[in-house]
Amino acid sequence: MNHRRCATLALAAAVWGAPLAAAPAKGKAALQKTKAEAIASIERHRAELVSLSDQVWGFAETALRETRSAKVLADYAEQQGFRVERGVAGMPTAFIASYGEGRPVIGIMGEYDALPGLSQKAVPSREILAEGAPGHGCGHNLFGAASLGAAVAIKEAIAAGKLAGTIRFYGTPAEESVGGKVYMVRAGLFKDVDVALAWHPDTENRPDTQGGQAIVDMIVEFKGKTAHAAFDPWNGRSALDGLELMTHAINLMREHVKPTVRLHYVIANGGNVPNVVPEYAKLWLWVRDVERAGLEDVLARVRKAAEGAALAAGVESRITVQAGDYEMLVNQAGARLLHANLVALGPIAYTADEDKFARTLQASAGVEAKGMNTGVRSLEGQENQGGSTDVGDVSWNVPTLHVSIATAPAGVPWHAWPVVAAGGMSIGHKGMVLAAKTLATTMADLFDDAAAREAVVAEFREKTKGFTYKAYIPDSPPPLPTN
Amino acid sequence: MNHRRCATLALAAAVWGAPLAAAPAKGKAALQKTKAEAIASIERHRAELVSLSDQVWGFAETALRETRSAKVLADYAEQQGFRVERGVAGMPTAFIASYGEGRPVIGIMGEYDALPGLSQKAVPSREILAEGAPGHGCGHNLFGAASLGAAVAIKEAIAAGKLAGTIRFYGTPAEESVGGKVYMVRAGLFKDVDVALAWHPDTENRPDTQGGQAIVDMIVEFKGKTAHAAFDPWNGRSALDGLELMTHAINLMREHVKPTVRLHYVIANGGNVPNVVPEYAKLWLWVRDVERAGLEDVLARVRKAAEGAALAAGVESRITVQAGDYEMLVNQAGARLLHANLVALGPIAYTADEDKFARTLQASAGVEAKGMNTGVRSLEGQENQGGSTDVGDVSWNVPTLHVSIATAPAGVPWHAWPVVAAGGMSIGHKGMVLAAKTLATTMADLFDDAAAREAVVAEFREKTKGFTYKAYIPDSPPPLPTN
Amino acid sequence: MNHRRCATLALAAAVWGAPLAAAPAKGKAALQKTKAEAIASIERHRAELVSLSDQVWGFAETALRETRSAKVLADYAEQQGFRVERGVAGMPTAFIASYGEGRPVIGIMGEYDALPGLSQKAVPSREILAEGAPGHGCGHNLFGAASLGAAVAIKEAIAAGKLAGTIRFYGTPAEESVGGKVYMVRAGLFKDVDVALAWHPDTENRPDTQGGQAIVDMIVEFKGKTAHAAFDPWNGRSALDGLELMTHAINLMREHVKPTVRLHYVIANGGNVPNVVPEYAKLWLWVRDVERAGLEDVLARVRKAAEGAALAAGVESRITVQAGDYEMLVNQAGARLLHANLVALGPIAYTADEDKFARTLQASAGVEAKGMNTGVRSLEGQENQGGSTDVGDVSWNVPTLHVSIATAPAGVPWHAWPVVAAGGMSIGHKGMVLAAKTLATTMADLFDDAAAREAVVAEFREKTKGFTYKAYIPDSPPPLPTN
Amino acid sequence: MNHRRCATLALAAAVWGAPLAAAPAKGKAALQKTKAEAIASIERHRAELVSLSDQVWGFAETALRETRSAKVLADYAEQQGFRVERGVAGMPTAFIASYGEGRPVIGIMGEYDALPGLSQKAVPSREILAEGAPGHGCGHNLFGAASLGAAVAIKEAIAAGKLAGTIRFYGTPAEESVGGKVYMVRAGLFKDVDVALAWHPDTENRPDTQGGQAIVDMIVEFKGKTAHAAFDPWNGRSALDGLELMTHAINLMREHVKPTVRLHYVIANGGNVPNVVPEYAKLWLWVRDVERAGLEDVLARVRKAAEGAALAAGVESRITVQAGDYEMLVNQAGARLLHANLVALGPIAYTADEDKFARTLQASAGVEAKGMNTGVRSLEGQENQGGSTDVGDVSWNVPTLHVSIATAPAGVPWHAWPVVAAGGMSIGHKGMVLAAKTLATTMADLFDDAAAREAVVAEFREKTKGFTYKAYIPDSPPPLPTN
Repeated sequence: MNHRRCATLALAAAVWGAPLAAAPAKGKAALQKTKAEAIASIERHRAELVSLSDQVWGFAETALRETRSAKVLADYAEQQGFRVERGVAGMPTAFIASYGEGRPVIGIMGEYDALPGLSQKAVPSREILAEGAPGHGCGHNLFGAASLGAAVAIKEAIAAGKLAGTIRFYGTPAEESVGGKVYMVRAGLFKDVDVALAWHPDTENRPDTQGGQAIVDMIVEFKGKTAHAAFDPWNGRSALDGLELMTHAINLMREHVKPTVRLHYVIANGGNVPNVVPEYAKLWLWVRDVERAGLEDVLARVRKAAEGAALAAGVESRITVQAGDYEMLVNQAGARLLHANLVALGPIAYTADEDKFARTLQASAGVEAKGMNTGVRSLEGQENQGGSTDVGDVSWNVPTLHVSIATAPAGVPWHAWPVVAAGGMSIGHKGMVLAAKTLATTMADLFDDAAAREAVVAEFREKTKGFTYKAYIPDSPPPLPTN
Repeated sequence: MNHRRCATLALAAAVWGAPLAAAPAKGKAALQKTKAEAIASIERHRAELVSLSDQVWGFAETALRETRSAKVLADYAEQQGFRVERGVAGMPTAFIASYGEGRPVIGIMGEYDALPGLSQKAVPSREILAEGAPGHGCGHNLFGAASLGAAVAIKEAIAAGKLAGTIRFYGTPAEESVGGKVYMVRAGLFKDVDVALAWHPDTENRPDTQGGQAIVDMIVEFKGKTAHAAFDPWNGRSALDGLELMTHAINLMREHVKPTVRLHYVIANGGNVPNVVPEYAKLWLWVRDVERAGLEDVLARVRKAAEGAALAAGVESRITVQAGDYEMLVNQAGARLLHANLVALGPIAYTADEDKFARTLQASAGVEAKGMNTGVRSLEGQENQGGSTDVGDVSWNVPTLHVSIATAPAGVPWHAWPVVAAGGMSIGHKGMVLAAKTLATTMADLFDDAAAREAVVAEFREKTKGFTYKAYIPDSPPPLPTN
Repeated sequence: MNHRRCATLALAAAVWGAPLAAAPAKGKAALQKTKAEAIASIERHRAELVSLSDQVWGFAETALRETRSAKVLADYAEQQGFRVERGVAGMPTAFIASYGEGRPVIGIMGEYDALPGLSQKAVPSREILAEGAPGHGCGHNLFGAASLGAAVAIKEAIAAGKLAGTIRFYGTPAEESVGGKVYMVRAGLFKDVDVALAWHPDTENRPDTQGGQAIVDMIVEFKGKTAHAAFDPWNGRSALDGLELMTHAINLMREHVKPTVRLHYVIANGGNVPNVVPEYAKLWLWVRDVERAGLEDVLARVRKAAEGAALAAGVESRITVQAGDYEMLVNQAGARLLHANLVALGPIAYTADEDKFARTLQASAGVEAKGMNTGVRSLEGQENQGGSTDVGDVSWNVPTLHVSIATAPAGVPWHAWPVVAAGGMSIGHKGMVLAAKTLATTMADLFDDAAAREAVVAEFREKTKGFTYKAYIPDSPPPLPTN
Repeated sequence: MNHRRCATLALAAAVWGAPLAAAPAKGKAALQKTKAEAIASIERHRAELVSLSDQVWGFAETALRETRSAKVLADYAEQQGFRVERGVAGMPTAFIASYGEGRPVIGIMGEYDALPGLSQKAVPSREILAEGAPGHGCGHNLFGAASLGAAVAIKEAIAAGKLAGTIRFYGTPAEESVGGKVYMVRAGLFKDVDVALAWHPDTENRPDTQGGQAIVDMIVEFKGKTAHAAFDPWNGRSALDGLELMTHAINLMREHVKPTVRLHYVIANGGNVPNVVPEYAKLWLWVRDVERAGLEDVLARVRKAAEGAALAAGVESRITVQAGDYEMLVNQAGARLLHANLVALGPIAYTADEDKFARTLQASAGVEAKGMNTGVRSLEGQENQGGSTDVGDVSWNVPTLHVSIATAPAGVPWHAWPVVAAGGMSIGHKGMVLAAKTLATTMADLFDDAAAREAVVAEFREKTKGFTYKAYIPDSPPPLPTN
C-alpha cells in the first residue's frame, strides 16, 4: 500500500476464523514435507532476513532512491545462488532474481522504499532518529526481506529436487510514489509468470479478498495571461480562476458520483504574488473507485471539468496522468491456499515486552490498548477498506495472491511513526517471518499441486475474459530522481 | 429609459448654465417667428396634450399591451391631419404619423408603455389606485404626448408654408422591455430620416451629452438529466450545477473586465423540488458597458463561460439574446441646438402647491426637500450615470438629439410611485409642455437652418464611419403578449 | 413513502424466499380460524374496498386538501360501526376510527393524499384524465382502503368475540408533504397504542427490514440590501451571493459527510430582475441520512454553513425546518410475523390481461418486460433503498410493523403515471386486497398471541432505550391549505 | 513604488506643459543664487553620485538585506560631514544622516532595495548578469543616490551660511516588501520634520498630484482537521474548503465594491498531498482603494468573509495584516514648487546612443519606439494610475512632496529587466541628476521662502484636520531576514 493512497487501518474485525481449525488443503505427504522444509529454511536464514530488514529500515530510502536497499537485497539473492538482473524496466533500483528452469514460473514481489519525514527510533514513543529523514512507515523493509526469504526457501526446494520450475523474486521499487510495478508490467517482465504473490504489513493477518481501490494520480495545469492586478487586471486571464472553477466543478460532481468514488486534491500552485494576475496554476488531483470501470467514467468527466473550467475562465488547461493503479483483482482460489497455510502455521507468540511495546503504541495513539492481533481473518465478510497499490496492475496481468500480516498493533495510525517503530524491532521481525512462511508454503502448493495452481489460473482467466490492460502512466520512461 | 435598465437618478449637479444667459444660435427673424408660432401652437393645444397624457397615465398599459394608449395618440394625430400607419414593424401598438413631403425628414419619437405593479394616485403620498395594476413610473405618458405636441406644431408650420419637408412621429411601444425601437429600426422605418429627436422625463433639464450604457439582455438555459436526488443522484447531471458554475465564472470575470462593465443576473429557475436532480435551470443575465465595443468583448467571454460551465457540469447550455440596446451616440451639434432653445424658453414657474408636492415627495424619499430643479445643465461636465434605452439603436442609424426634462423632483427613486404621482399632475404636465416646446423649436432649427442640420449630420457621419449596425435581438418577430 | 422523498424502486432482488415454503408461526387452531375469517371478511367487503379505492383515486386530492377522500373513508368506517373522530391534530382531513375496548390497542394507518400534476387514466399508455390535475402516483388510494379493510375485518372478529382489545384506524393525511403523522404523534394520538401497522404500495412484496432515511426539509432564506445593479451595485448586498456561498459550502461538505448522507436543494427564489441587486433569496434544502443521529450532525453543520455564508456575503440568513421524518425503526419480530402471513397467503394470480398491462407499462418505461413480482422477499439481505416516510416518526413512538405489497410492475418509475394507471385497475386492487389480508392476519397474531406481541414490544423497548423523541417540525400548528 | 504594488507605467500623456514656459516662482535673487550653487554642487559631485548609484546597482540587495548598499550611502554621508545614525527603527539597514541645527527641518528620503530575480546587464537586450540574482527593476539605486546628492548640496548651502536649519537624509530600506518607512514613522523618526521630500524613477517627468492607492497586505490562514481523504474523509474538515469559500466570497464581493477598489490574491498554501484532507491552507491577499477610508470599509468586509467562510466550512481562520501603505496625501502647494523648478531646469538632452538604447528597449517591449520623454507633465489632468508606496505613510504624518523623473523609456514594463538596464547606464544617471537638482532647488525654496513653506504646511494641516494615523503593520518589530 503506498504513501499516496494507503488506508489499511484495520477496523474491529467481527468475524474471525478459529486460528487452528483449518487443515492443509491437501493431505499429500510429499508436499507437506516440502512445506516443513521451507519453514525450516526460513528459520535457518532468520538472522540474515532480520539483518536485511534492519539494514533497509536503517537506509530508509525513498522512491527510486533505494540504491543501498536494492543492493543488499540483490546481493543477498546473488549469494544465495539466484541469477540477478539489476536496473530492469529503466529503473536502477528495480531488479529480478531468478532460480530454476521452465514452468511453472512463480513470481514473488518485494518492496523496499521508505516514506519522507518519518524518521523514528525503534522505541514505543516518538523519538526521531535523524531530523527530517525518511522512515519505513509502511513496513516495506519487512516486505522485501520476507518475500526474498520465501523465495530462498523455494529455491532450496528446487535445488533439492523437491519442486520443479522457476522461482523469481521481483525487487519492485517506488511503490509509495511512481508505482514501479506498473513500469515493470509495461516492460513485459511479468509476461511468462504463472502466478504472482505479494504480501503487505498490516495490523491483522488476512488473506485478502477485497481489491482496494483503483486510483489515478493526475496533474491539472492552467495557463492564463498575466497582468498587473492593480493597474490593468482586465488585461489578465487568471489561471487560478480556471483552477477554482474546476475545483468547484469537482465539488459539485461529488453529488453525482457513486458513494464508492473518492476525489481529492490539493492546490499545488495557486500563484506567486498577489500583485500579478497568475498566469499559471496547478492542481494535484486523485480519483479513485473500487473498480477501474467506474473510475474511467469519472475520469472522463474530470477531463471535461478541466476543459470546461478553462473555457469559462478564458485560459487553457492540460491534464497529465502521472501515475495510477488498478484495484487488485482478487483471486479467491489463491486466498483459500493462503488462508489454509496461514492457519496451519499458527499464531505468533509475543513476549511480555513485545506486548507492552504494542500496548504502549496503542495508548499513545489514543486507541484501546489490547495488544497485537494474532488470529486469522475469515475470507468472508471482509470490508473493502480502500487504499491502492501497484500490485493491482500486476493482478490484472497475472493471477496474483495477496496476504496481509500483522506487523504493528491494531488502531495505530499507518504511515506514521508507530509503524516505523514496530517495524524496526521484534514485533515487525516476527510478522516478517510469518509472512515468509505463509508465502513459501503457498508457493509450495502452487509448484507442487497442479490442480490448485490451475484453479488459481482458471479463476484469473474467467475474471479477465475480454479485458485489455492499459497502464495509467504516461508514454515515457519512469521519472528518475533529480538529485 | 427603460424598466430593465434605467438609472437616471440625478445627482447633485455642480455645474449649471445660467438659465437666461444664452441667446438663440441664429438671429434670423423668420426662424424666430416660426419658433414663436410653434410655441404658440403648443399652448393652443395644451389642454388636449394634457388630456392625452392623463388618458395614457390612466390606461397604464405595459409593453406591447399599450392598445388604448397607442390608439388615443394615433387617433389624435389623424385628427390633426397626419397620415397614420398603425401596427408597423410587426407590433400592433407601433405606429407612424406623417405630414408633409420631401426632405428633410425629421423624426420624433414618443413612448407610452407603463411599468407593472406601480399603480399610484396623483398624490404626494403612497396611495394605490388599483391594487396590482401597472403605473407610469418612468413618465412615458408625458413622453408620447409631448413629442406628438411638438410634431403637431411643426405640422402646422409646414401647412402654413413656414417650413418645408416631412415631419414624422414614431409611436414607439415597449421601451421598458422588448425594445420596440430596435424592431422598428430593423424594419427599416428610420431609413430615410435626416435627424431624429427624443426626450425623456427626468429630475433635471439637460440636453444629453452622455450616452448611457449599451446593454444586452440574455437568457442562459441549462439542460441536464434528472434523477432521484436521494436514490440515484449519480445518474443525474444537474442543470443547476451548470448554472452555479457559470455564475461563479461570471463573478471571477469581474476582476478581469473594465470598471465600466456591469454584469448582473438573477436565477430565474433553480429547480423544482429538492428530491429531483434539476434537469432545467435558467439564468437571466444583463451585460452592460459604456461602449458597445467593450460589451462585445465581454459578451464573447460570457458565451464561453456558459459553454465551459455546461461542459464542466456534464450538461448543455443555450444562450438567447432577447433584447439589447446600443449606448446612445451623442450628437454634440444637436445638443447645442437643444441647449440654446431650452435656455431661451426660460425656467418653469412652479406654484406654491406644486413646490409643496415636490418637497413632500422628497421628504418621503428621505432626500433633501429642495423642490424642483429649474436650471439647465451645461453641456460640459456631465457624468455618465449609466442606464440604457432603445433610443440608442436609433442613434446609431440616424443622427439623434436627446434632451431630458424635469418632471419629478430630484432625489426621488425612479421607477417608483413618486414618479407616477408627479407625472399624473401639473408638475408632470409643465415638464411635458417644456419638452414639447424644446423639441418643436429645435425641429424648427433643423428644418429651416440647413447649416445647423448639416453640422448634425456631418458629426454623425464622422462618428459612424466604418460602422455597421447589427441589432441585439433574435432573428424573429417581436414577442407579442400572450394574454 | 412521500412525494418529497420516495425512492422505493425495487432493484433486482437476488434473494427471494420460496413463496409457499413457510408455515404459520403458530399452530394454534383458534388463531388460524380467526385469520381465516378475517380473510373471508376482506373478500366479503372486496367490492366496497375497491370502490373506496377507486373513489379516492378519482378525487386525487393533494396534501391537506383530501376532504372528499377522508370523508368517504371516515363515513365507511362509521357505517361499519367504528367510533369516528374527525379533524384531529388540527388537520380537518385527519381522523381516527376506533372499535372495541381496552388493551391491547392495535393501530393501523391509512393514507389517501395524491400528487400534483400526475393525472392519468387507468390505461397502460400515457393518457391524461384531467389536464394539470393531481394523480395517485404513490398508490395512497390503495393504502387507505386496504388498511381500513383490515381494520374492518378485525372489528368483526372483536364483535364476534374472537379477539379482545381495541382496533384503531388512523386516517393520516398529507404524507407527500407536511407529514401529517408527525403532527398526530405530537398531538399524543399514538400514546396508548401497543403496536402500529402500515403498508405501502410497491413493486415487490416485502416485510420491511430496512428503515429508509431520516430526512429534514428546510428553507434557508437570505436577506440583503437592494441597490441598482448598474448604477450603484456597491451599495447593495446581494442575498443571492449569500445563497450561492451556502450552496458552495454544501457542495464542499459532500466530501466530508458519510456516503449514506444525501444533501439536495433547489433555488426557490434567486432574485426578480437583473437590474436590482436581490434583497431576498431562498434555498429549499433536504438533508437525509440512514440514521437520525448522523442527520443531526449534518444539520448542525448546515446551520453553520448558512450562518457563515451570510456573514461572508454581508447579509442575513434564516433557517426554517418545515418538515422532517425519522428513519423507520425496524421491528424484526414484527417483520417475521408479516413474512409468515404473507407467505401463507400465497402469491397473487394475475390474468393474461393484467400481465399484458404490466408488461406494457414496463416496455414504455424502457425496462425489461417481465411482468409483476409475485414472490415474497426474504427478511435477510434487503438493501436500504433510501426514501423517507412519516411512518418513521410513529415507529420511534410505538412498535411499528411495515410491509410493502406489489401494486405496480418492477422497474417503472415511481411518482409517475404508470403507478397511477396500475393503481386505478385490477392490478392495484389485487395488491390492495393482499395488503389488507396480510395486515389483518398479522393483527390477529398481535391480538391473540401475547408472546408474539410481547416480542414486538420488547424489541422496541430495547431499541429505544434512553431515546427521547423530538419532532422535526416547527412549534406551530400544521400548515393549512390557503385556497 | 514597491514590488508588491507598483503600477507607474506612464500612459499616453495628453496634456503636457511647455517645457520652458514657466518662470521661477519667486524672483528673489539670493534664492536664485542659492539654487544655482546647489545645482553646481550636484554637478561637482556627479561622478561620486554616479558611482554610488552604480555600486548599489551592482550590489542589488533585496529588502532588509541592503547591508552594503546602506553602508556606501551612509559612509558617503559621513564623509560629507553629516552626523549618521545607523540601524534606526530596529532595522540594521535603516539610517539617518543629519546636518545643521534648528528649524526648519527638511527631510529627504532615499531607497536602495532591489527586486529578486531581475539580474540584468546594462545593455538594451535581455542579458543576465548573475543567474537568479536580484536586480534594480524599480530604480532604487538611483533613488538613494539622487536624494543623497540633493541633501549634500543643501548641506553645503547651510555650511556656507546661505540656508539655515536642518537637512536630514532618511535611508529608508525595504520599500519593495515590509515597508521600512512605516516602521520609521512608527518609531517617531519623522516627528519633528517640517516638510519631507521624495522622488521616484519613472518614464516621465511629473510632480505628482495623484495619490496612488492605499493598500493592505494580509495573510489569511485556515486551520481544519486532517483525515485520510480516501478512507475517512468524513472525519476531516478541510482548511482548503474554508479558503475556497473565502475566495468565492471575495469574487462575489467584487460586484459590491466601488470601481476603484482592487482585491487580489494568491493561494500560498493549498494543501500538501491529495491523500490527506488539508488541515492548513493559506491565502495571501491585497486590498487597495484610492482612499484609506474606502479601504477600511472593504477590509471590514474581508474580515467577515474569512470568518464566515471558516464557519461555513467548519474550520478556523486567522487574518494577519503584515504590511500596508496609505495612499499618498498630495500636497498641491509643494507640487507647484517642484513643477516650477523642474521646468526651470529644462529638459534632459540625450545622446544618439542613449536615444537608440531607449528605442531598442521599447522595440523589445513591443511598444512604439519613440525614445525618452523629456517634457514635464502638467499638474492638472493627471490620472490616478494606481500603485502604492510607503511614502504614503510619511505623507500623512508630515507634509510630503513627491516628484517622478524619467529614468527609462515610456512603455517598457516596470519591475522588469529594461528598467534594470536603463538604470545602470547614462539614461538612468541623467535622470538621477535631474532628480537631485529638482529636489535640491525645491528644498532651497522650502528653507528660504517661509511663505512657500507655510503654504505647504497649511495645506497639510487643512487636509489632515481630525485625522489620526494608525499604521497597517502588526504590533511587532520589523521582520528581519532569516538568512
